[in-house]
Amino acid sequence: GSAVPAAKRPCVELRRGLSYADRAALPNVHPLASKLLKIMEEKRSNLCISADVTSAKELLQLAESLGPKICMLKTHVDILKDYTAAFSQELQTLAEKHNFLIFEDRKFADIGNTVKHQYEGGVFQISSWSHLVNAHAVPGPGVVKGLGAVGKPLGRGCLLIAQMSSQGSLATGEYTKSVVSIMAEEHSDFVIGFICGSEVTERPEFIHVTPGVQLKTGGDSLGQQYTTPEEVIYSKGSDIIIVGRGVLEAPDRLEAAESYRKAGWDAYIKSVSQTSQ
Amino acid sequence: GSAVPAAKRPCVELRRGLSYADRAALPNVHPLASKLLKIMEEKRSNLCISADVTSAKELLQLAESLGPKICMLKTHVDILKDYTAAFSQELQTLAEKHNFLIFEDRKFADIGNTVKHQYEGGVFQISSWSHLVNAHAVPGPGVVKGLGAVGKPLGRGCLLIAQMSSQGSLATGEYTKSVVSIMAEEHSDFVIGFICGSEVTERPEFIHVTPGVQLKTGGDSLGQQYTTPEEVIYSKGSDIIIVGRGVLEAPDRLEAAESYRKAGWDAYIKSVSQTSQ
Repeated sequence: GSAVPAAKRPCVELRRGLSYADRAALPNVHPLASKLLKIMEEKRSNLCISADVTSAKELLQLAESLGPKICMLKTHVDILKDYTAAFSQELQTLAEKHNFLIFEDRKFADIGNTVKHQYEGGVFQISSWSHLVNAHAVPGPGVVKGLGAVGKPLGRGCLLIAQMSSQGSLATGEYTKSVVSIMAEEHSDFVIGFICGSEVTERPEFIHVTPGVQLKTGGDSLGQQYTTPEEVIYSKGSDIIIVGRGVLEAPDRLEAAESYRKAGWDAYIKSVSQTSQ
Repeated sequence: GSAVPAAKRPCVELRRGLSYADRAALPNVHPLASKLLKIMEEKRSNLCISADVTSAKELLQLAESLGPKICMLKTHVDILKDYTAAFSQELQTLAEKHNFLIFEDRKFADIGNTVKHQYEGGVFQISSWSHLVNAHAVPGPGVVKGLGAVGKPLGRGCLLIAQMSSQGSLATGEYTKSVVSIMAEEHSDFVIGFICGSEVTERPEFIHVTPGVQLKTGGDSLGQQYTTPEEVIYSKGSDIIIVGRGVLEAPDRLEAAESYRKAGWDAYIKSVSQTSQ
């Protein structure tokens, strides 16, 4: 009846008014989401660097130098020409030293039985070193069940791809709604959030992570489209900005990372202070 | 006007009435699709084996023993615990010896700039040895452009995932239509067909490839659903059956592969002879 809109409204306020620390302490938050939110609060950083380099050595150098600025490091191990098991061990050591999470951007997108093997086995053994992975929802719930069978016993988490930053993406409208309602909310013991361009759920225990972020808007020749940290965090209600080329192609990567950390953090402070009043 | 339905109708007949050999000779067929169709005709096989094993040695044994029965071998190199560059060379040698194509079932699903690196680089260097790869359309046209930038100069081809065999897949309805009309038809210099459960286009130059095939229908505990070769080729109008566990878990794999080859071929003969009359 007439009580429904009134009851729903504070929920929206709730998520956007809560600090990362408040959300880390929610009773129903996933332990890994809680850990990530605490890191963000502690390091005053909602910056994830996308370490899209093709040399394992360079990736480790990035993790060492930019580690203090970030809450999460996003990897594509399958583009490293010199991947070894020793690399993944060194990366884990750096993640502990600088207190960030590792997020292998594998975009799992197969049936449950296959992703189980892809996540656990093969040359990369992703589940053994990556705190977070992501998955497309297009195969249906089996993809989350298959990954969860491997990741849940290890305390790992998954981000579902609800939207994409690329031009002409089919992850829109009903597709996005299905990702949230069918795939994530029913598997919140493993799915801790979303890859998305804007807020896709009001539930404060889910973390929103947004790729395609640059201080200057624009795009590349293969359909990537960029949005600013302020737009992503303050206007769109996301939690974490993923920055790749904005930092990697800068003359001084550390200085660039600090600019993005500050821009992301300022946008968060502006958002949380306005909505909590 | 009133001529449209009449003009459209023969098109449907056309694709289903054409033999693989007829289609291999079409003026607008992609060279790799033509090669595959010729192999199918020559070897009387529309069977693709899904070599979902975790040992490179076992995969090579499979390719050697089942090679004569198949038109294509589907791999997941990222589940092999002992992948080496030497493995991919041996696999290519077996593909030439037994005249089949290699199809790495990577399900690329990222933005163009990333899939370019994933396809060409890293430990696996997929583009250097796999004739065919597949991709999800969810990132938008950039995924095909990125892959095409690497694969086209090498004469490689791509299958777009228009439908999936898993329960609750979101690749249905408008999504499937977008894959065909926006993604495939505009990139037919690289996209040679579809992963699908049934006919998604009438254009005879595109090849339909269907996973989740077993002689007995049913499913697994992670949402996979099985259909029979007769159903897939004759009733649904697909061209190639992908069989994994139906052969791999059989007591005699060679005997099982022959049963599937015959079932798939008989369904094709039945289909082509009925529709061409």
